[in-house]
Amino acid sequence: MDGRVTIALDGMGGDNAPEMVVKGANLARTRFPELTFLLFGDERRLSPLVEPLPRVKEACRIHHTDEVVTSDARPSQALRQGRNSSMRLAIDAVRDGRAAAVVSAGNTGALMAMSRLVLKTAAGIDRPAIASFFPTMRGESVMLDLGANVDCSAENLVQFAVMGEVFARSVLGLTRPTVGLLNVGSEDQKGHEEVRAAAAVLRDLKLPMVFQGFVEGDDIGAGSVDVFVTDGFTGNIAVKTAEGTARLYTHFLRQAFTTSPLSRLGYLLARGALEGLRVRVDPRRYNGAILIGLNGITVKSHGGTDALGFANAVGVAVEMIQHGFVETTRAELERLNTVHSAPAGDKPRAAAS
Amino acid sequence: MDGRVTIALDGMGGDNAPEMVVKGANLARTRFPELTFLLFGDERRLSPLVEPLPRVKEACRIHHTDEVVTSDARPSQALRQGRNSSMRLAIDAVRDGRAAAVVSAGNTGALMAMSRLVLKTAAGIDRPAIASFFPTMRGESVMLDLGANVDCSAENLVQFAVMGEVFARSVLGLTRPTVGLLNVGSEDQKGHEEVRAAAAVLRDLKLPMVFQGFVEGDDIGAGSVDVFVTDGFTGNIAVKTAEGTARLYTHFLRQAFTTSPLSRLGYLLARGALEGLRVRVDPRRYNGAILIGLNGITVKSHGGTDALGFANAVGVAVEMIQHGFVETTRAELERLNTVHSAPAGDKPRAAAS
Repeated sequence: MDGRVTIALDGMGGDNAPEMVVKGANLARTRFPELTFLLFGDERRLSPLVEPLPRVKEACRIHHTDEVVTSDARPSQALRQGRNSSMRLAIDAVRDGRAAAVVSAGNTGALMAMSRLVLKTAAGIDRPAIASFFPTMRGESVMLDLGANVDCSAENLVQFAVMGEVFARSVLGLTRPTVGLLNVGSEDQKGHEEVRAAAAVLRDLKLPMVFQGFVEGDDIGAGSVDVFVTDGFTGNIAVKTAEGTARLYTHFLRQAFTTSPLSRLGYLLARGALEGLRVRVDPRRYNGAILIGLNGITVKSHGGTDALGFANAVGVAVEMIQHGFVETTRAELERLNTVHSAPAGDKPRAAAS
Repeated sequence: MDGRVTIALDGMGGDNAPEMVVKGANLARTRFPELTFLLFGDERRLSPLVEPLPRVKEACRIHHTDEVVTSDARPSQALRQGRNSSMRLAIDAVRDGRAAAVVSAGNTGALMAMSRLVLKTAAGIDRPAIASFFPTMRGESVMLDLGANVDCSAENLVQFAVMGEVFARSVLGLTRPTVGLLNVGSEDQKGHEEVRAAAAVLRDLKLPMVFQGFVEGDDIGAGSVDVFVTDGFTGNIAVKTAEGTARLYTHFLRQAFTTSPLSRLGYLLARGALEGLRVRVDPRRYNGAILIGLNGITVKSHGGTDALGFANAVGVAVEMIQHGFVETTRAELERLNTVHSAPAGDKPRAAAS
């Protein structure tokens, strides 16, 4: 990256804020020394945390505010009452060009509502979505929407596909990401109207996107495609189901290793390798969901994360800035709209794969 | 159980049929010696398989038919062309009272369509659903719908809750199962209209059911409730996501154990315990989804299962017969409809928990 990159941080969002925000920023600068921060929040609490950490101290400006968005605030309430909150002021900094992205571990609904209001939805997008990436058998994949929109039209799904594809190129560094629509079966007639209509559009589009049709729930762990597209209801439940299953499996594994002295010894011998496994599936590695489809970069960190997780969320923001995510998405959407609204001279297929 | 119990078997359904059906029936009789079978399918293939297995041979009548429902047949096609198929004749046997349940590892869509046509939907039920059970941190839980209905109304979800609760009492043997509605958050305002309306009805109902409100995807692995209620789109994707995640974790674990000679040795020492884990999460243990909400018991075995898995699906059918599942569900639904249509004198809350 050339020159400095400034990121606005919501210093007060998240269960372990503000400590983990400041320490996370410190960690992020070891990876990205070009980073500088605008840190929004209670100066009396932030200053003593910043002071002993020279890497943050030399690259951080604290903007004081007393106000915070609470984790249980409704989005509408946060919009009305949170105009001077640390979250809102951090988003404002992106709108004003003082920062290239905002990272917050605060209330997701409020972050989305404020980001929509302040940054505005990108041209060609009806509804922003939440996207994130996760480990699979083939590496890493992206999924969206993870909960911003519980009801989605076919149009929404098509736009998510375009944005998700750009996200996979930006953050996962893939040159030709494959895209699949999550459904209850792979045959054309499967699923509800919206998902079938979206598939028909994506198949017919003459975009460079590699659309692989319908994929199913077990394709998520397999990593059968790089980008999984679905509505926010299904996506939220699928991602949390995967997290819960991983925890269940860890629980079973722990029990298995304590069933006998022999298995305990086996555990001790394999501990190094199992620790490697733990690191590999560590949710902190995959921390940093993007609010996608806005005129600016908003990254949502998990609310319960620690400094390492927050640093990874900052890393996601940096990668999106480096890859010009907003500009690339805009160009792709313009291409989509040009292609999509062109006279459909030869559209022989509605359902054939 | 008193006396004999007859189960109709689709001898030709499933990837490994008819071998695994006959061998599965044999295994099932070691657990349930009171079982007898009506076995539908190609006699030339079935007879030589039955012949060397005395436990099946003494308790089985083969009904010959040449016709089969293929795994890729559409439900409408199966209905029209499959009147003499092994699947259809097995269902007919339940309608005619010659068998107390039918078990098939064939085409799910066709099995549902034929079961609806032949057995009819139970009184008080608008749409039958698919239910199954799975391992959790607390034991076992049930989920429905797993794919029969991609779009569900609030009414459908309420009916699924009632049926799922009876299923948990019958098959899991629970006395007071807890019920939760799958959603993207636990707060009242979360989710789409259907799920919020269903929650409002379930909260107000004066049924003995223990309704715990909304649950999320990670509650599935945790087993936070005994019965997870959702639409068929979400349920299908959630269950397959969990399966895929379990496979991913197994894959990672295998890799971890082969990273060094030390971890290989550790694996050897812990092998017995890990084998126990494998058995614990073995999908064959949880084989046997129910088509729920019909005037009769139809159990769907996984298409790719083997004899052990098929025997477990037969076991599920036996438990449902033993617990008078159809009759209990009918009584509960009558109670639901009486309560639900009673004048709502004191219904103060629409959304409060």
